Amino acid sequence: MRKIADSARSWQGRAGQSVTIGIGDDAALFRPKLGHETILTCDWFLEGTHFLREKHPPDAVGWKCLARALSDVAAMGGTPRCFLLSLALPESHTGRWLDLFLGGLRRASSKFQCVLAGGDTTRRNEILIDVTVVGEVRAGSAALQSGARPGDILYVSGRLGEAEFGLRILKRDNKPEASKSQAVRKHLCPEPRLALGRWLVQKDLASAMMDLSDGLSSDLPRLCAASRVGALLEMAKIPQLQMTDAAVKHGRDPLQLALHGGDDYELLFTVPARKVGRLPKTFQGVPLTAIGKITRRRELLVLEESGYAIPLMPGGWDPFRKKL
Amino acid sequence: MRKIADSARSWQGRAGQSVTIGIGDDAALFRPKLGHETILTCDWFLEGTHFLREKHPPDAVGWKCLARALSDVAAMGGTPRCFLLSLALPESHTGRWLDLFLGGLRRASSKFQCVLAGGDTTRRNEILIDVTVVGEVRAGSAALQSGARPGDILYVSGRLGEAEFGLRILKRDNKPEASKSQAVRKHLCPEPRLALGRWLVQKDLASAMMDLSDGLSSDLPRLCAASRVGALLEMAKIPQLQMTDAAVKHGRDPLQLALHGGDDYELLFTVPARKVGRLPKTFQGVPLTAIGKITRRRELLVLEESGYAIPLMPGGWDPFRKKL
Repeated sequence: MRKIADSARSWQGRAGQSVTIGIGDDAALFRPKLGHETILTCDWFLEGTHFLREKHPPDAVGWKCLARALSDVAAMGGTPRCFLLSLALPESHTGRWLDLFLGGLRRASSKFQCVLAGGDTTRRNEILIDVTVVGEVRAGSAALQSGARPGDILYVSGRLGEAEFGLRILKRDNKPEASKSQAVRKHLCPEPRLALGRWLVQKDLASAMMDLSDGLSSDLPRLCAASRVGALLEMAKIPQLQMTDAAVKHGRDPLQLALHGGDDYELLFTVPARKVGRLPKTFQGVPLTAIGKITRRRELLVLEESGYAIPLMPGGWDPFRKKL
Repeated sequence: MRKIADSARSWQGRAGQSVTIGIGDDAALFRPKLGHETILTCDWFLEGTHFLREKHPPDAVGWKCLARALSDVAAMGGTPRCFLLSLALPESHTGRWLDLFLGGLRRASSKFQCVLAGGDTTRRNEILIDVTVVGEVRAGSAALQSGARPGDILYVSGRLGEAEFGLRILKRDNKPEASKSQAVRKHLCPEPRLALGRWLVQKDLASAMMDLSDGLSSDLPRLCAASRVGALLEMAKIPQLQMTDAAVKHGRDPLQLALHGGDDYELLFTVPARKVGRLPKTFQGVPLTAIGKITRRRELLVLEESGYAIPLMPGGWDPFRKKL
């Protein structure tokens, strides 16, 4: 589709210099930085599964399909370089919808300095998107899910459950004012925590890290399994969304949203106890909150305010979806 | 999906050494080779658009989704390193179908030394596949579509139109003996011309190169546009499939198949006239055939046996599909 190719050529900024041949040849050519490893990640973003054609503005679809893939680069402490876009569209969506979609994609591409290097397009009844992001990290320094050790303190960035709450508002009513809500904005246009991830790796503070895409109760078990450890969460410490009249009215429990809500794209990371003092309370305005600790015993427990510890049951997003 | 992750871990061979972290973390980590550029390409392989669930054996779907993406690496003269698999499947296909699919994928992965480094899976009514391949080529040496010069001789590898003919046989009858046909085999299990592409680049013979995925009449105009040149094809020289009783019976014209048939994954390349003598007639058993030459005048003509030159009209695969 000429429109995408033309559009993408006009996006290439400073970040485009590492892509020597982009759009238009059989493949893209990327010049890796000396002493760095290349980060590779891909993410489906499918109509009906990950977004709703009637509810999600095309601009937000464009932003989010890239932002969520970038979140995996953030989780390794890497810097994004370029991405490939696989896009299947109905003929009816190659006009205004595509323009708006490309607008959102371009905003994310420009904000996070990640240029469109190539891709594949085809016609399809449903809107299908798959984004592959290429990033870089100094060789040997990437944060992995497998580095958590017993005694490490467990942290999250931001507040959990907001995006899930935003999705529920969006599904319920489709009024323009809904998009002014902070929760709806977080659902539609998540911010991958790239600067935070990079800083944690540069300062050698995170022993393990991952991003929260499926919800804390689904993602924490993956980090623990990779590190062969357990965790004890403190319920009272989990940063939740600000309870509003609307939430109360609709009977939403902020804690349940925080434990099981997906799509937050916050970072979950562990910090060795001796390094905790070097961690600020906020990073570029985003709160960093200790929510528990890593245990030797391989079980996941939540310490209730009553003082009882109960097992954490996965309740997040998983229609057999799992990153490979 | 555990099955894919477990399966992929067991595939890692020698070629896996450049992938330092693969399956199971937020993203894969790939260690680029010094002095090389990274080749990036992705290809949709969608049920109903690129294959038929009832007609294409799962093993062939597995082979072909990787082989066709590898063909883009071949077209640049590169060496494949690793790939990401985005797979959406109905629950009903997570058993035997998936096993057979992974079998075909593994055969291609192993034959072409390209390891599975990661991906994303989800549930879906239709089978959706998107493969991203990462390859490498010595910095500055990749063959591009844009390098053809007036006077260069135009070559293709193999015979054209076979895969299209195989597809037609496959669509018509679904008898096991059909798969014994050379044309059906070429349609189901194409061989990306990796060794040839690499050799042409190492010997500095190809001034421009691309792979034939949509058909000569659709792909040649792209190479000419990228190089800002035209071409004169000699109809009599285009290597066509061997005319068989079956083809005659079904009224197939081998020349039309050769001009417009897609999915051949042969290489189309140009060689400066002074280097033509260094090109063998076959490479590892695959014929290399001069089919015309590059012209300054930016038009595409076919020289008929009668001596008349007629314009080449694109007739290949293009449901607005175009590589970005």
